[in-house]
Amino acid sequence: MAILVVPLSIVLDQIVNVFLLGAFVLPMNKSKISNTLLFQIIKEKHLLLPDIMKENDMDCWIIFVRETPSNPDPIMNLLVGGDVVWKAAFIFSISDGKFKKTVILGEGDSSAEKRKGIWDEVIGYVKGISETLKTFIDKLNPTKIALNYSLDDVVSDGLSHGMYLNIERILGEHKKKFISSKPLVHAVRGRKTKTEIELVQKACELTEEINKKMAKQFKIGVSETQIQEMFFKEMENLGVEEAWQRNCCPAIDAGPDKEIGHDGPREDLFTQKGHTLHNDFGVRLNGYCSDIQRMWFFGTEDEIPDELIHAFNTVRDAIQKAADYIKPGVTGHSVDTIARNHVISQGYPEYGHALGHQVGTEGHDGGVLLGPLWEKYGDIPKGLVEENNIFTLELEVVTKNYGTVSLEEDVVITKDGCRFLVPPQTKFITL
Amino acid sequence: MAILVVPLSIVLDQIVNVFLLGAFVLPMNKSKISNTLLFQIIKEKHLLLPDIMKENDMDCWIIFVRETPSNPDPIMNLLVGGDVVWKAAFIFSISDGKFKKTVILGEGDSSAEKRKGIWDEVIGYVKGISETLKTFIDKLNPTKIALNYSLDDVVSDGLSHGMYLNIERILGEHKKKFISSKPLVHAVRGRKTKTEIELVQKACELTEEINKKMAKQFKIGVSETQIQEMFFKEMENLGVEEAWQRNCCPAIDAGPDKEIGHDGPREDLFTQKGHTLHNDFGVRLNGYCSDIQRMWFFGTEDEIPDELIHAFNTVRDAIQKAADYIKPGVTGHSVDTIARNHVISQGYPEYGHALGHQVGTEGHDGGVLLGPLWEKYGDIPKGLVEENNIFTLELEVVTKNYGTVSLEEDVVITKDGCRFLVPPQTKFITL
Repeated sequence: MAILVVPLSIVLDQIVNVFLLGAFVLPMNKSKISNTLLFQIIKEKHLLLPDIMKENDMDCWIIFVRETPSNPDPIMNLLVGGDVVWKAAFIFSISDGKFKKTVILGEGDSSAEKRKGIWDEVIGYVKGISETLKTFIDKLNPTKIALNYSLDDVVSDGLSHGMYLNIERILGEHKKKFISSKPLVHAVRGRKTKTEIELVQKACELTEEINKKMAKQFKIGVSETQIQEMFFKEMENLGVEEAWQRNCCPAIDAGPDKEIGHDGPREDLFTQKGHTLHNDFGVRLNGYCSDIQRMWFFGTEDEIPDELIHAFNTVRDAIQKAADYIKPGVTGHSVDTIARNHVISQGYPEYGHALGHQVGTEGHDGGVLLGPLWEKYGDIPKGLVEENNIFTLELEVVTKNYGTVSLEEDVVITKDGCRFLVPPQTKFITL
Repeated sequence: MAILVVPLSIVLDQIVNVFLLGAFVLPMNKSKISNTLLFQIIKEKHLLLPDIMKENDMDCWIIFVRETPSNPDPIMNLLVGGDVVWKAAFIFSISDGKFKKTVILGEGDSSAEKRKGIWDEVIGYVKGISETLKTFIDKLNPTKIALNYSLDDVVSDGLSHGMYLNIERILGEHKKKFISSKPLVHAVRGRKTKTEIELVQKACELTEEINKKMAKQFKIGVSETQIQEMFFKEMENLGVEEAWQRNCCPAIDAGPDKEIGHDGPREDLFTQKGHTLHNDFGVRLNGYCSDIQRMWFFGTEDEIPDELIHAFNTVRDAIQKAADYIKPGVTGHSVDTIARNHVISQGYPEYGHALGHQVGTEGHDGGVLLGPLWEKYGDIPKGLVEENNIFTLELEVVTKNYGTVSLEEDVVITKDGCRFLVPPQTKFITL
């Protein structure tokens, strides 16, 4: 391919194909999002922007990128769609109360952006972006310029340092106005649109469907890796991919000797009567993820040891208490505290991670975290829960004799509470 | 999945599986690199590092990353392998003449790095990276600290601005020593190892194999999109993916009405007798790419218009002249000039892009560019060609009546010249 020419046409052509010519649709597996859905979500997100910018008292936000296949900005898929080769500035601005969406990018690439129909203005440049961008910002003269950098939050940190140095050089004195776009990114990512909620819900439903189907095939004397292989085959049959790294999606944990979490499946650990089986599993369906943990027991209900039942009920109830408490306006860490205190009250040490993270295009979707105020989480747990956020609620306790009990549910925040995307697990599934 | 726990175990487990347990290998398509190959290449690259650092008078290079699935550094796949969740510093240093490789990363993730066996020292932290990293650098007290940022070059710009601010804060007065790692990144990426050259060669051979097979099926009256579909099906049969964005890989261009390059295939352009057919195509095989352009003619050799023959020979000879000239030590732009001058001497306007880019894990692999000294290319074409670089040589000329003629070949730089990875096209392939 010629260096001048590469990735921009992806969007151009797919748009042409889907919207103009109507007939040709690229073959794709069920994990990838179609262009129809992608641009539906992007349009929904664009509608949220004026309010989000006003709430945060921001009048200019620039997504400044180049060659995004090599160095992507995580916000591109929600606000732009597709990739760019040359330096490009996607600018959201409010001037005299009027919200405007402008793109400044390589002339050769501008027709693709024009055809998307999502921008108020597309300005192509020939030799370099500097003059066009500087002139535009001089004229706009915003009070602040939000850029995608953040000390704590990876999804708000899509601007590379080299590109920061470029825009600092280009915009001269305007650099005093630079400010982190983190609150904007959090709101854009976190406030799931109707379409996004439906997509995560479908991914959750499919995950449970696979879990139920696989459980019918679980047998005694099978290794963790063999069980993982069963899941892989079923996912392949269904044309869906894992929501996170394949080697631990699903994570499979059999019996008391397995420390849940860090290690993938082992070849030398086998299912046994009287033992638990656990998985941590999500699929990517239409570009959106699920993230669910389930637990099974090899034996009848009567055979489940009291120690396991107490542990299970502790985890289940901690999740339910957090779900009963969570609603728009509460802080992330306050939700974590509810679950954490319950675990401690039942005689277990507290779990070593956050109660929950957001789920969306990534299994770990960034934004406000339902986590403790520990140094490693920075100020992320201090953020407020908002309507239409989707969170995991997950934790584990370790029993003395029977290993770890761990569950994870996915909830969407409603106007005054939350809703489980699929029914939560309330007792061991016996096998 | 628990936030604490996600992607690090990918490498851990695959290493365990491949190297320790020996039996279980994850199912994968032929496009993805196996862990065996990945770590073979990483070890080969590590062997290059002491010389590369000494040549560039650098005594400390830090790859500083977090949550790489959301925000990757393009150098990770060549020097680290796998992903990290928490802030991690991969440090290459030379002290008292001794080269050393150190990792400082989250304690929970450190066992995975230890098991790789590629680091001299793996230091885990619990609460945060700051103190451990600062202490290490204080003790090392290097003269320079190379970081992955670059104004011009995307593959040397993997450090996000937020992470730059973090390391600036952590290292205090050492920040005066910060310097761009661009020359290191260029050498590491550009100096292809034996294994890498073999992999790109295999990808090129497969590309030509597919081209030849497909050409037997090319017919008159078929649309560009239909021809692209034929390629997609063959790629699916072979289990390989496209080297760049699917919608223009292969790019398909039929006849005089198609401007080669920017647009993907069209449904309303059909192959015709007396017309050309062109593609720009590469596959990803074992993680490495090819990038080749070929041209066909619907008719006998006698029927090819002189205008097309003159154009073809001009492009072919420009590429050959560049290939005859290129060798280690020449500047990128001087190679471009050879081809550009030939095109002009034959009465055509010069092409609007660079003659060639490097190929490797990406179709556009960064580093020195065989391009003109135009503003948009920055100082990248001023770099020197090195042994074992792999470049494309590609250009087009536009005829008055028969559309565009465009070819692209892939060459590896040898000790005193270059070698075509597959035989270059020397005349129209007639259909």
